[in-house]
Amino acid sequence: MNETNFAAVVASIRDALNAQGFMKLVGAEIVSVKPGEVELALNRRPEVLQHNGFFHGGVTAFLVDNATTVAAGTLVDRERRTVLTAEYKLNFVAPAAGDRLSCRAKVLKPGRSLIVVEAKVYCRTEGEEKLTAVALATIACIDQPKAA
Amino acid sequence: MNETNFAAVVASIRDALNAQGFMKLVGAEIVSVKPGEVELALNRRPEVLQHNGFFHGGVTAFLVDNATTVAAGTLVDRERRTVLTAEYKLNFVAPAAGDRLSCRAKVLKPGRSLIVVEAKVYCRTEGEEKLTAVALATIACIDQPKAA
Amino acid sequence: MNETNFAAVVASIRDALNAQGFMKLVGAEIVSVKPGEVELALNRRPEVLQHNGFFHGGVTAFLVDNATTVAAGTLVDRERRTVLTAEYKLNFVAPAAGDRLSCRAKVLKPGRSLIVVEAKVYCRTEGEEKLTAVALATIACIDQPKAA
Amino acid sequence: MNETNFAAVVASIRDALNAQGFMKLVGAEIVSVKPGEVELALNRRPEVLQHNGFFHGGVTAFLVDNATTVAAGTLVDRERRTVLTAEYKLNFVAPAAGDRLSCRAKVLKPGRSLIVVEAKVYCRTEGEEKLTAVALATIACIDQPKAA
Repeated sequence: MNETNFAAVVASIRDALNAQGFMKLVGAEIVSVKPGEVELALNRRPEVLQHNGFFHGGVTAFLVDNATTVAAGTLVDRERRTVLTAEYKLNFVAPAAGDRLSCRAKVLKPGRSLIVVEAKVYCRTEGEEKLTAVALATIACIDQPKAA
Repeated sequence: MNETNFAAVVASIRDALNAQGFMKLVGAEIVSVKPGEVELALNRRPEVLQHNGFFHGGVTAFLVDNATTVAAGTLVDRERRTVLTAEYKLNFVAPAAGDRLSCRAKVLKPGRSLIVVEAKVYCRTEGEEKLTAVALATIACIDQPKAA
Repeated sequence: MNETNFAAVVASIRDALNAQGFMKLVGAEIVSVKPGEVELALNRRPEVLQHNGFFHGGVTAFLVDNATTVAAGTLVDRERRTVLTAEYKLNFVAPAAGDRLSCRAKVLKPGRSLIVVEAKVYCRTEGEEKLTAVALATIACIDQPKAA
Repeated sequence: MNETNFAAVVASIRDALNAQGFMKLVGAEIVSVKPGEVELALNRRPEVLQHNGFFHGGVTAFLVDNATTVAAGTLVDRERRTVLTAEYKLNFVAPAAGDRLSCRAKVLKPGRSLIVVEAKVYCRTEGEEKLTAVALATIACIDQPKAA
């Protein structure tokens, strides 16, 4: 894919995420989108925490959900195909204590019908990032529904 | 555990969930809490949807995260022990199209240090519920940090 | 599917499993095959144990792998489609101590391209069965490769 | 840990794996054991294949099961603590066609009671390795049962 085409892919992905009510509610931002790699992040505020003051596990899961699906979506022909989250598994490895939570997703295997993506989630405290979660996702790639 | 004691457990769980900024932001409610079984749910509104008008996968994951952890939490001695989400895996089996999303979590195996919980997520459309996601979670049970 | 057709499905499944060198090496048997439900099992012998005398976790995983894929395979048109294990997750909930290990797989959702299957593994000791593992699997359903 | 001590750890791990009937039945070998990293492998033979001539998914799962648990085990004080496989999830990303199957497990996070380990499985064909599966495992670390 050439650079012009990939810019169109990125624009299409930004449009889709901006049209998600939940993306806006959570307040996450798109940090970067490259072929097969995506970073999403959000800053700490009381509305995204759990009762001990850490980022809520559901916020981590939301970032994993969106970042893995979008990373897979960078690799498909968006005119004809679309991506759907089939499943994911995530391990929480440390409390998400800090001021910014970032999820970096990377395609491990771009299959024709299934795309396997890994994600790592980091929390930044005093300028240092710490790994807080790891995930493995399966994204299904299906034909676009035909327009009427 | 007798009924009085379990009422205290439920009160303590409600307090913890009410203290979660993210629980309030998402707008989820506690439908029921029984020993080893919990139901959480939320109604459809634009802020919890993705770009095709379905409940966002991250909302499903949030319900799974909280419901499985709380279900495990009903079975531990809360004076001395606390629960932490270690990991979960969820499969999306149908689009979450409908007006209400409910997650029912049930403990499969209450181990001493690890509690395994399954969850099923249903979406209600025109009065009928449809299975939209299934999950399997591992909840760690650890000693309460000592107060100073 | 009528009974005659399903008998053909069962025969085809038995042929496939009998052609697996690893199925023979492990010594597992097909206990039952119904539409969307399969049970596989094997008896205790030193060759399938780990170093503490329990059935090896890899034996449990093997049963889960085969039973979930076969359960999915009962629901597809085998003339035109075939099934492949995309992924699974399994939780070990108790040591597999006993004289017989059985895995029961059941389709939760038969999608067109992905079939979600759960499995429970039991170990029998002194006539009583105990749950030793639970699993959740995603089976891909693809077109049969064309014959030359 | 100094080198002499780690040599004792490796010896203890080799003893445990050599005492597994299933390890011998499958015919797997220990390729390398380093702190937090383990490689296990086995060569192709009819007894470890499925009906299409690929390494059986259950063989991949067995390697993942043992390699992740052993990798976690390299990091614990074996005098006082022992490791148990709590759960794992694996994705099959390509058919395991080739003459040798290798699993490399690496600890991502050595927690006090839970150790999170990733594994990648490769199949070698004509001297080239190809990624065939990826996995994420949770290993529990518990006190050694007291001797009588």
